[in-house]
Amino acid sequence: MRDKGKKKIEVCYSPALYPFYRNDNAVVVVSDILRATTAICAAFENGVKNLIPVADLNEAREWKKKGYLVAAERDGLVLDFADFGNSPFNFHPEQVRGETIVYSTTNGTQAIRMASDARHVAIGAFINLTALAEWIIDEDSDVLVLCAGWKNRYNLEDSVFAGALADTLIESGHFFTDCDSAVASRELWNMARTDLAAFMDKAAHRHRLKKLGLDDVIQYCHTPDSTRVIPLLKDHLLVEHKEY
Amino acid sequence: MRDKGKKKIEVCYSPALYPFYRNDNAVVVVSDILRATTAICAAFENGVKNLIPVADLNEAREWKKKGYLVAAERDGLVLDFADFGNSPFNFHPEQVRGETIVYSTTNGTQAIRMASDARHVAIGAFINLTALAEWIIDEDSDVLVLCAGWKNRYNLEDSVFAGALADTLIESGHFFTDCDSAVASRELWNMARTDLAAFMDKAAHRHRLKKLGLDDVIQYCHTPDSTRVIPLLKDHLLVEHKEY
Repeated sequence: MRDKGKKKIEVCYSPALYPFYRNDNAVVVVSDILRATTAICAAFENGVKNLIPVADLNEAREWKKKGYLVAAERDGLVLDFADFGNSPFNFHPEQVRGETIVYSTTNGTQAIRMASDARHVAIGAFINLTALAEWIIDEDSDVLVLCAGWKNRYNLEDSVFAGALADTLIESGHFFTDCDSAVASRELWNMARTDLAAFMDKAAHRHRLKKLGLDDVIQYCHTPDSTRVIPLLKDHLLVEHKEY
Repeated sequence: MRDKGKKKIEVCYSPALYPFYRNDNAVVVVSDILRATTAICAAFENGVKNLIPVADLNEAREWKKKGYLVAAERDGLVLDFADFGNSPFNFHPEQVRGETIVYSTTNGTQAIRMASDARHVAIGAFINLTALAEWIIDEDSDVLVLCAGWKNRYNLEDSVFAGALADTLIESGHFFTDCDSAVASRELWNMARTDLAAFMDKAAHRHRLKKLGLDDVIQYCHTPDSTRVIPLLKDHLLVEHKEY
Protein backbone atom coordinates (compact mmCIF):
# COMPACT_ATOMS: atom_id res chain seq x y z
CA MET A 1 0.00 0.00 0.00
CA ARG A 2 3.03 2.28 0.36
CA ASP A 3 3.14 4.50 -2.71
CA LYS A 4 6.61 4.59 -4.14
CA GLY A 5 8.62 7.39 -2.60
CA LYS A 6 5.85 8.54 -0.29
CA LYS A 7 6.39 8.82 3.44
CA LYS A 8 3.97 7.43 5.99
CA ILE A 9 1.94 9.26 8.62
CA GLU A 10 0.61 7.43 11.68
CA VAL A 11 -1.29 8.62 14.76
CA CYS A 12 -0.94 7.36 18.34
CA TYR A 13 -3.90 8.30 20.56
CA SER A 14 -2.28 7.94 23.97
CA PRO A 15 1.20 7.92 25.54
CA ALA A 16 0.25 4.46 26.87
CA LEU A 17 0.04 3.21 23.26
CA TYR A 18 3.41 4.67 22.22
CA PRO A 19 5.27 1.31 22.41
CA PHE A 20 2.93 -0.04 19.70
CA TYR A 21 3.55 2.88 17.31
CA ARG A 22 7.14 3.77 18.11
CA ASN A 23 9.30 4.57 15.08
CA ASP A 24 12.58 6.22 15.97
CA ASN A 25 13.25 7.11 12.32
CA ALA A 26 10.16 9.29 12.26
CA VAL A 27 9.50 12.89 13.14
CA VAL A 28 7.30 12.63 16.23
CA VAL A 29 4.82 15.51 16.53
CA VAL A 30 3.55 15.88 20.10
CA SER A 31 0.05 17.32 20.33
CA ASP A 32 -1.62 18.59 23.50
CA ILE A 33 -3.94 21.22 22.07
CA LEU A 34 -5.62 22.17 25.38
CA ARG A 35 -3.22 23.59 26.31
CA ALA A 36 0.45 22.58 26.55
CA THR A 37 1.58 22.45 22.93
CA THR A 38 -0.44 25.54 21.99
CA ALA A 39 1.14 27.37 24.94
CA ILE A 40 4.66 26.24 23.94
CA CYS A 41 4.16 27.63 20.43
CA ALA A 42 2.76 30.88 21.92
CA ALA A 43 5.75 31.15 24.26
CA PHE A 44 8.20 31.00 21.33
CA GLU A 45 6.03 33.39 19.32
CA ASN A 46 6.41 35.83 22.24
CA GLY A 47 10.18 35.54 22.28
CA VAL A 48 11.07 32.80 24.79
CA LYS A 49 14.63 31.61 24.08
CA ASN A 50 14.13 28.00 25.11
CA LEU A 51 11.98 25.74 27.27
CA ILE A 52 13.08 22.94 29.56
CA PRO A 53 10.30 20.33 29.58
CA VAL A 54 10.19 18.44 32.88
CA ALA A 55 7.76 15.62 33.66
CA ASP A 56 8.22 15.63 37.42
CA LEU A 57 7.00 18.35 39.79
CA ASN A 58 9.90 18.00 42.22
CA GLU A 59 12.25 18.62 39.32
CA ALA A 60 10.27 21.77 38.42
CA ARG A 61 10.56 22.92 42.05
CA GLU A 62 14.34 22.41 42.00
CA TRP A 63 14.68 24.56 38.86
CA LYS A 64 12.60 27.27 40.58
CA LYS A 65 15.06 27.29 43.52
CA LYS A 66 17.89 27.80 41.03
CA GLY A 67 16.14 30.99 39.88
CA TYR A 68 14.44 29.86 36.68
CA LEU A 69 10.98 30.96 35.59
CA VAL A 70 8.70 27.94 35.94
CA ALA A 71 5.40 27.10 34.23
CA ALA A 72 3.62 24.23 35.98
CA GLU A 73 0.08 22.99 36.35
CA ARG A 74 -1.73 19.81 37.23
CA ASP A 75 -5.32 19.13 36.17
CA GLY A 76 -5.52 22.63 34.67
CA LEU A 77 -4.54 24.52 37.85
CA VAL A 78 -1.38 26.62 38.38
CA LEU A 79 0.83 25.27 41.16
CA ASP A 80 1.68 27.57 44.08
CA PHE A 81 5.44 27.70 43.47
CA ALA A 82 5.11 28.39 39.73
CA ASP A 83 5.34 31.69 37.81
CA PHE A 84 2.89 30.58 35.12
CA GLY A 85 0.32 27.88 34.40
CA ASN A 86 0.00 26.56 30.88
CA SER A 87 -2.37 29.08 29.35
CA PRO A 88 -0.96 30.38 26.05
CA PHE A 89 -1.98 33.89 27.25
CA ASN A 90 0.46 33.81 30.19
CA PHE A 91 3.64 34.39 28.26
CA HIS A 92 3.75 38.19 27.81
CA PRO A 93 6.63 39.30 25.57
CA GLU A 94 7.98 41.85 28.07
CA GLN A 95 8.21 39.10 30.71
CA VAL A 96 9.55 36.18 28.67
CA ARG A 97 11.62 37.56 25.77
CA GLY A 98 15.05 35.92 25.74
CA GLU A 99 14.26 33.81 28.82
CA THR A 100 14.60 30.10 29.51
CA ILE A 101 11.41 28.70 31.04
CA VAL A 102 10.99 25.37 32.83
CA TYR A 103 7.75 23.77 31.71
CA SER A 104 5.74 20.95 33.30
CA THR A 105 2.13 19.96 32.56
CA THR A 106 -0.27 17.11 33.22
CA ASN A 107 0.09 15.26 29.95
CA GLY A 108 2.21 17.18 27.47
CA THR A 109 5.71 17.06 28.91
CA GLN A 110 5.46 13.35 29.67
CA ALA A 111 4.69 12.74 26.00
CA ILE A 112 7.65 14.92 24.90
CA ARG A 113 10.04 13.02 27.16
CA MET A 114 8.71 9.66 25.97
CA ALA A 115 9.44 10.50 22.32
CA SER A 116 12.94 11.85 22.93
CA ASP A 117 14.74 9.04 21.04
CA ALA A 118 12.97 9.84 17.76
CA ARG A 119 14.78 11.46 14.82
CA HIS A 120 13.07 14.76 15.67
CA VAL A 121 10.45 15.71 18.24
CA ALA A 122 8.34 18.67 17.11
CA ILE A 123 5.60 20.55 18.95
CA GLY A 124 2.32 20.65 17.03
CA ALA A 125 -0.80 22.75 17.50
CA PHE A 126 -3.50 24.24 15.29
CA ILE A 127 -1.75 27.61 15.72
CA ASN A 128 1.39 26.39 13.88
CA LEU A 129 -0.26 23.81 11.56
CA THR A 130 0.82 25.09 8.13
CA ALA A 131 4.37 26.04 9.12
CA LEU A 132 4.82 22.64 10.77
CA ALA A 133 3.46 20.76 7.74
CA GLU A 134 5.78 22.65 5.38
CA TRP A 135 8.81 21.84 7.55
CA ILE A 136 7.81 18.15 7.73
CA ILE A 137 7.47 17.97 3.93
CA ASP A 138 11.00 19.36 3.66
CA GLU A 139 12.24 16.77 6.17
CA ASP A 140 10.96 13.99 3.85
CA SER A 141 10.58 11.53 6.73
CA ASP A 142 7.86 9.31 8.21
CA VAL A 143 5.68 11.10 10.77
CA LEU A 144 4.06 9.91 13.98
CA VAL A 145 1.63 12.21 15.77
CA LEU A 146 1.70 11.45 19.49
CA CYS A 147 -1.50 12.72 21.11
CA ALA A 148 -0.91 13.60 24.76
CA GLY A 149 -4.53 12.76 25.59
CA TRP A 150 -5.92 13.13 29.11
CA LYS A 151 -4.33 10.85 31.70
CA ASN A 152 -3.71 8.29 28.98
CA ARG A 153 -7.29 8.45 27.70
CA TYR A 154 -8.17 9.49 24.14
CA ASN A 155 -9.18 13.10 23.61
CA LEU A 156 -10.99 14.73 20.76
CA GLU A 157 -8.98 17.93 20.24
CA ASP A 158 -5.61 16.15 19.92
CA SER A 159 -7.15 13.57 17.60
CA VAL A 160 -8.72 16.20 15.32
CA PHE A 161 -5.42 18.11 15.18
CA ALA A 162 -3.71 14.86 14.13
CA GLY A 163 -6.31 14.59 11.37
CA ALA A 164 -5.64 18.16 10.22
CA LEU A 165 -1.92 17.43 9.95
CA ALA A 166 -2.51 14.07 8.24
CA ASP A 167 -4.87 15.70 5.77
CA THR A 168 -2.42 18.51 4.96
CA LEU A 169 0.46 16.07 4.44
CA ILE A 170 -1.54 13.56 2.36
CA GLU A 171 -3.02 16.36 0.23
CA SER A 172 0.54 17.56 -0.47
CA GLY A 173 1.05 14.33 -2.43
CA HIS A 174 4.18 13.37 -0.48
CA PHE A 175 2.55 11.25 2.24
CA PHE A 176 0.21 8.25 2.59
CA THR A 177 -1.30 6.36 5.50
CA ASP A 178 -2.36 2.78 6.25
CA CYS A 179 -2.96 3.59 9.91
CA ASP A 180 -6.59 3.40 11.06
CA SER A 181 -6.23 6.14 13.67
CA ALA A 182 -4.83 8.49 11.01
CA VAL A 183 -7.81 7.59 8.76
CA ALA A 184 -10.33 8.18 11.59
CA SER A 185 -8.72 11.48 12.62
CA ARG A 186 -8.72 12.73 9.05
CA GLU A 187 -12.45 11.92 8.76
CA LEU A 188 -13.13 13.82 11.99
CA TRP A 189 -11.07 16.81 10.81
CA ASN A 190 -12.91 16.96 7.51
CA MET A 191 -16.20 16.89 9.39
CA ALA A 192 -15.05 19.51 11.92
CA ARG A 193 -13.05 21.97 9.82
CA THR A 194 -15.87 24.23 8.64
CA ASP A 195 -16.84 25.01 12.25
CA LEU A 196 -14.11 23.71 14.49
CA ALA A 197 -15.30 25.52 17.64
CA ALA A 198 -18.80 24.04 17.37
CA PHE A 199 -17.43 20.55 16.79
CA MET A 200 -15.06 20.88 19.74
CA ASP A 201 -17.94 21.85 21.99
CA LYS A 202 -18.52 18.10 22.10
CA ALA A 203 -15.16 17.45 23.72
CA ALA A 204 -14.93 16.54 27.40
CA HIS A 205 -11.86 18.62 28.22
CA ARG A 206 -13.52 21.80 27.00
CA HIS A 207 -16.15 21.26 29.71
CA ARG A 208 -13.45 20.44 32.26
CA LEU A 209 -11.77 23.80 31.52
CA LYS A 210 -15.10 25.62 31.56
CA LYS A 211 -15.78 24.31 35.05
CA LEU A 212 -12.39 25.67 36.15
CA GLY A 213 -13.04 29.04 34.47
CA LEU A 214 -10.17 28.34 32.07
CA ASP A 215 -12.08 28.27 28.82
CA ASP A 216 -10.94 31.68 27.55
CA VAL A 217 -8.28 29.96 25.42
CA ILE A 218 -10.54 27.58 23.49
CA GLN A 219 -11.03 29.82 20.47
CA TYR A 220 -7.32 30.69 20.25
CA CYS A 221 -6.26 27.03 20.57
CA HIS A 222 -8.52 26.02 17.66
CA THR A 223 -7.62 28.81 15.24
CA PRO A 224 -5.05 27.63 12.67
CA ASP A 225 -1.87 29.43 11.70
CA SER A 226 -1.50 32.38 14.06
CA THR A 227 2.24 31.63 14.20
CA ARG A 228 5.05 30.19 12.06
CA VAL A 229 7.20 28.94 14.97
CA ILE A 230 8.24 25.28 15.03
CA PRO A 231 9.50 24.22 18.48
CA LEU A 232 11.85 21.22 18.35
CA LEU A 233 13.40 19.10 21.09
CA LYS A 234 17.19 19.35 20.99
CA ASP A 235 19.29 17.78 23.76
CA HIS A 236 16.38 17.81 26.24
CA LEU A 237 15.67 21.46 25.47
CA LEU A 238 12.86 22.89 23.36
CA VAL A 239 14.23 25.41 20.87
CA GLU A 240 12.78 27.25 17.93
CA HIS A 241 13.52 25.66 14.54
CA LYS A 242 14.96 28.80 12.98
CA GLU A 243 17.64 28.91 15.69
CA TYR A 244 18.31 25.21 15.30
CA MET B 1 -22.90 16.55 32.80
CA ARG B 2 -24.51 13.29 33.99
CA ASP B 3 -28.23 13.55 33.32
CA LYS B 4 -30.21 12.46 36.34
CA GLY B 5 -30.92 8.74 36.19
CA LYS B 6 -29.07 8.18 32.93
CA LYS B 7 -26.32 5.61 32.65
CA LYS B 8 -22.96 6.34 31.07
CA ILE B 9 -21.35 4.81 27.98
CA GLU B 10 -17.58 4.95 27.48
CA VAL B 11 -15.31 3.50 24.79
CA CYS B 12 -11.80 2.10 25.25
CA TYR B 13 -9.83 1.85 21.98
CA SER B 14 -7.23 -0.72 22.99
CA PRO B 15 -6.71 -3.46 25.60
CA ALA B 16 -3.56 -1.51 26.57
CA LEU B 17 -5.78 1.42 27.65
CA TYR B 18 -8.15 -0.73 29.72
CA PRO B 19 -6.61 0.27 33.10
CA PHE B 20 -7.56 3.91 32.36
CA TYR B 21 -11.21 3.08 31.57
CA ARG B 22 -11.84 0.14 33.89
CA ASN B 23 -15.21 0.18 35.64
CA ASP B 24 -16.10 -3.12 37.27
CA ASN B 25 -19.69 -1.99 37.85
CA ALA B 26 -20.23 -1.67 34.11
CA VAL B 27 -21.31 -4.09 31.43
CA VAL B 28 -18.17 -4.46 29.30
CA VAL B 29 -18.92 -5.11 25.64
CA VAL B 30 -15.94 -6.66 23.86
CA SER B 31 -15.76 -5.82 20.16
CA ASP B 32 -13.49 -7.50 17.62
CA ILE B 33 -15.54 -7.10 14.47
CA LEU B 34 -12.99 -8.66 12.08
CA ARG B 35 -13.54 -11.35 13.10
CA ALA B 36 -13.61 -12.84 16.62
CA THR B 37 -16.74 -11.34 18.15
CA THR B 38 -18.71 -11.66 14.90
CA ALA B 39 -17.65 -15.32 14.71
CA ILE B 40 -18.63 -15.94 18.36
CA CYS B 41 -22.13 -14.57 17.69
CA ALA B 42 -22.34 -16.70 14.52
CA ALA B 43 -21.25 -19.80 16.45
CA PHE B 44 -24.09 -19.37 18.97
CA GLU B 45 -26.54 -18.57 16.17
CA ASN B 46 -25.56 -21.94 14.67
CA GLY B 47 -26.20 -23.81 17.90
CA VAL B 48 -22.88 -23.96 19.79
CA LYS B 49 -23.60 -24.73 23.47
CA ASN B 50 -20.71 -22.79 24.92
CA LEU B 51 -17.27 -21.42 24.12
CA ILE B 52 -14.15 -21.53 26.24
CA PRO B 53 -12.11 -18.40 25.44
CA VAL B 54 -8.39 -18.99 25.91
CA ALA B 55 -5.72 -16.34 25.42
CA ASP B 56 -2.75 -18.70 25.21
CA LEU B 57 -2.01 -21.08 22.33
CA ASN B 58 -0.47 -23.76 24.54
CA GLU B 59 -3.68 -23.81 26.53
CA ALA B 60 -5.66 -24.23 23.29
CA ARG B 61 -3.40 -27.15 22.33
CA GLU B 62 -4.00 -28.81 25.72
CA TRP B 63 -7.78 -28.61 25.23
CA LYS B 64 -7.38 -30.16 21.80
CA LYS B 65 -5.53 -33.13 23.33
CA LYS B 66 -8.46 -33.58 25.73
CA GLY B 67 -10.72 -34.01 22.69
CA TYR B 68 -12.36 -30.58 22.41
CA LEU B 69 -13.06 -28.82 19.14
CA VAL B 70 -10.65 -25.90 18.91
CA ALA B 71 -10.88 -22.64 16.94
CA ALA B 72 -7.53 -20.85 16.87
CA GLU B 73 -5.80 -18.36 14.65
CA ARG B 74 -2.97 -15.89 14.82
CA ASP B 75 -2.65 -12.95 12.44
CA GLY B 76 -5.69 -14.18 10.52
CA LEU B 77 -4.34 -17.69 9.79
CA VAL B 78 -5.74 -21.01 11.10
CA LEU B 79 -3.24 -22.93 13.23
CA ASP B 80 -2.28 -26.45 12.20
CA PHE B 81 -3.68 -28.22 15.28
CA ALA B 82 -7.03 -26.37 15.18
CA ASP B 83 -10.41 -27.49 13.80
CA PHE B 84 -11.46 -23.96 12.82
CA GLY B 85 -10.05 -20.48 12.35
CA ASN B 86 -12.13 -17.52 13.36
CA SER B 87 -14.18 -16.97 10.25
CA PRO B 88 -17.88 -16.69 11.15
CA PHE B 89 -18.55 -19.01 8.18
CA ASN B 90 -16.67 -21.93 9.77
CA PHE B 91 -19.27 -22.92 12.32
CA HIS B 92 -21.70 -25.11 10.35
CA PRO B 93 -24.75 -26.09 12.42
CA GLU B 94 -24.36 -29.83 11.69
CA GLN B 95 -20.80 -29.70 13.02
CA VAL B 96 -21.20 -27.46 16.06
CA ARG B 97 -24.74 -27.80 17.41
CA GLY B 98 -24.65 -28.60 21.14
CA GLU B 99 -20.84 -28.59 21.21
CA THR B 100 -18.36 -26.81 23.47
CA ILE B 101 -15.66 -25.10 21.44
CA VAL B 102 -12.33 -23.76 22.69
CA TYR B 103 -11.65 -20.39 21.12
CA SER B 104 -8.41 -18.41 20.83
CA THR B 105 -7.68 -15.45 18.56
CA THR B 106 -5.07 -12.74 18.12
CA ASN B 107 -6.83 -9.92 19.93
CA GLY B 108 -10.35 -10.88 20.95
CA THR B 109 -9.88 -13.49 23.67
CA GLN B 110 -7.22 -11.45 25.42
CA ALA B 111 -9.72 -8.60 25.69
CA ILE B 112 -12.43 -10.95 27.03
CA ARG B 113 -10.09 -12.30 29.71
CA MET B 114 -8.96 -8.81 30.68
CA ALA B 115 -12.55 -7.69 31.35
CA SER B 116 -13.55 -10.75 33.35
CA ASP B 117 -13.98 -8.91 36.69
CA ALA B 118 -16.67 -6.62 35.27
CA ARG B 119 -20.32 -6.96 36.27
CA HIS B 120 -21.04 -8.59 32.91
CA VAL B 121 -18.89 -9.23 29.85
CA ALA B 122 -20.93 -9.32 26.64
CA ILE B 123 -19.84 -10.05 23.08
CA GLY B 124 -20.73 -7.29 20.63
CA ALA B 125 -20.79 -7.18 16.84
CA PHE B 126 -22.78 -5.45 14.13
CA ILE B 127 -24.64 -8.74 13.60
CA ASN B 128 -26.18 -8.63 17.14
CA LEU B 129 -26.30 -4.82 17.58
CA THR B 130 -30.02 -4.28 18.25
CA ALA B 131 -30.52 -7.33 20.48
CA LEU B 132 -27.44 -6.36 22.50
CA ALA B 133 -28.58 -2.74 22.89
CA GLU B 134 -32.04 -3.86 24.08
CA TRP B 135 -30.52 -6.19 26.66
CA ILE B 136 -28.16 -3.44 27.91
CA ILE B 137 -31.07 -1.01 28.30
CA ASP B 138 -32.83 -3.63 30.46
CA GLU B 139 -29.68 -4.07 32.55
CA ASP B 140 -29.76 -0.34 33.41
CA SER B 141 -26.02 -0.21 34.04
CA ASP B 142 -23.02 1.82 32.84
CA VAL B 143 -21.42 0.43 29.68
CA LEU B 144 -17.82 0.25 28.55
CA VAL B 145 -17.06 -0.88 25.00
CA LEU B 146 -13.64 -2.54 24.93
CA CYS B 147 -12.30 -2.54 21.37
CA ALA B 148 -9.92 -5.45 20.82
CA GLY B 149 -8.00 -3.44 18.20
CA TRP B 150 -5.03 -4.90 16.33
CA LYS B 151 -2.06 -5.78 18.53
CA ASN B 152 -3.02 -2.97 20.89
CA ARG B 153 -3.38 -0.43 18.06
CA TYR B 154 -6.63 1.38 17.30
CA ASN B 155 -8.78 -0.05 14.54
CA LEU B 156 -11.58 1.50 12.57
CA GLU B 157 -14.16 -1.29 12.49
CA ASP B 158 -14.22 -1.80 16.29
CA SER B 159 -14.38 1.95 16.82
CA VAL B 160 -17.29 2.41 14.41
CA PHE B 161 -19.15 -0.49 16.03
CA ALA B 162 -18.65 1.23 19.42
CA GLY B 163 -20.17 4.34 17.86
CA ALA B 164 -23.16 2.39 16.58
CA LEU B 165 -23.83 0.99 20.05
CA ALA B 166 -23.28 4.39 21.72
CA ASP B 167 -25.65 6.02 19.24
CA THR B 168 -28.35 3.39 19.79
CA LEU B 169 -28.10 3.68 23.58
CA ILE B 170 -28.00 7.48 23.68
CA GLU B 171 -30.92 7.73 21.21
CA SER B 172 -32.92 5.45 23.55
CA GLY B 173 -32.88 8.31 26.08
CA HIS B 174 -31.47 6.13 28.87
CA PHE B 175 -27.75 6.82 28.32
CA PHE B 176 -25.35 9.77 28.06
CA THR B 177 -21.62 10.13 27.46
CA ASP B 178 -18.86 12.52 28.50
CA CYS B 179 -16.19 10.28 27.01
CA ASP B 180 -14.35 11.70 23.97
CA SER B 181 -13.78 8.32 22.34
CA ALA B 182 -17.52 7.59 22.56
CA VAL B 183 -18.19 11.01 20.98
CA ALA B 184 -15.67 10.41 18.17
CA SER B 185 -16.95 6.89 17.47
CA ARG B 186 -20.53 8.10 17.31
CA GLU B 187 -19.50 10.79 14.77
CA LEU B 188 -17.73 8.14 12.66
CA TRP B 189 -20.75 5.81 12.83
CA ASN B 190 -23.12 8.57 11.75
CA MET B 191 -20.82 9.32 8.83
CA ALA B 192 -20.43 5.65 7.90
CA ARG B 193 -23.89 4.19 8.47
CA THR B 194 -25.44 4.96 5.09
CA ASP B 195 -22.71 2.97 3.31
CA LEU B 196 -20.78 1.05 5.93
CA ALA B 197 -18.94 -1.20 3.48
CA ALA B 198 -17.59 1.77 1.49
CA PHE B 199 -16.49 3.54 4.65
CA MET B 200 -14.80 0.41 5.94
CA ASP B 201 -12.85 0.09 2.75
CA LYS B 202 -10.62 2.72 4.36
CA ALA B 203 -9.68 0.41 7.23
CA ALA B 204 -6.27 -1.21 7.39
CA HIS B 205 -7.41 -4.64 8.58
CA ARG B 206 -9.74 -5.04 5.63
CA HIS B 207 -6.67 -4.81 3.40
CA ARG B 208 -4.74 -7.17 5.67
CA LEU B 209 -7.51 -9.78 5.24
CA LYS B 210 -7.71 -9.14 1.50
CA LYS B 211 -4.03 -9.90 1.17
CA LEU B 212 -4.60 -13.20 3.00
CA GLY B 213 -7.65 -14.00 0.83
CA LEU B 214 -9.85 -13.80 3.92
CA ASP B 215 -12.05 -10.91 2.91
CA ASP B 216 -15.15 -12.97 2.09
CA VAL B 217 -16.55 -12.13 5.53
CA ILE B 218 -16.34 -8.33 5.31
CA GLN B 219 -19.90 -7.79 4.11
CA TYR B 220 -21.36 -10.22 6.67
CA CYS B 221 -19.38 -8.66 9.54
CA HIS B 222 -20.69 -5.18 8.70
CA THR B 223 -24.37 -6.06 8.23
CA PRO B 224 -26.39 -5.27 11.37
CA ASP B 225 -28.85 -7.57 13.08
CA SER B 226 -28.62 -10.95 11.37
CA THR B 227 -28.91 -12.57 14.83
CA ARG B 228 -30.52 -11.98 18.24
CA VAL B 229 -27.96 -13.96 20.27
CA ILE B 230 -26.14 -12.26 23.16
CA PRO B 231 -23.06 -14.20 24.27
CA LEU B 232 -22.07 -13.50 27.89
CA LEU B 233 -19.04 -14.54 29.91
CA LYS B 234 -20.11 -16.68 32.89
CA ASP B 235 -17.46 -18.38 35.06
CA HIS B 236 -14.81 -18.23 32.31
CA LEU B 237 -17.23 -19.70 29.79
CA LEU B 238 -19.12 -17.91 27.02
CA VAL B 239 -22.79 -18.84 27.09
CA GLU B 240 -25.86 -17.56 25.33
CA HIS B 241 -27.91 -15.05 27.33
CA LYS B 242 -31.21 -16.91 27.01
CA GLU B 243 -29.68 -19.94 28.74
CA TYR B 244 -28.12 -17.79 31.41
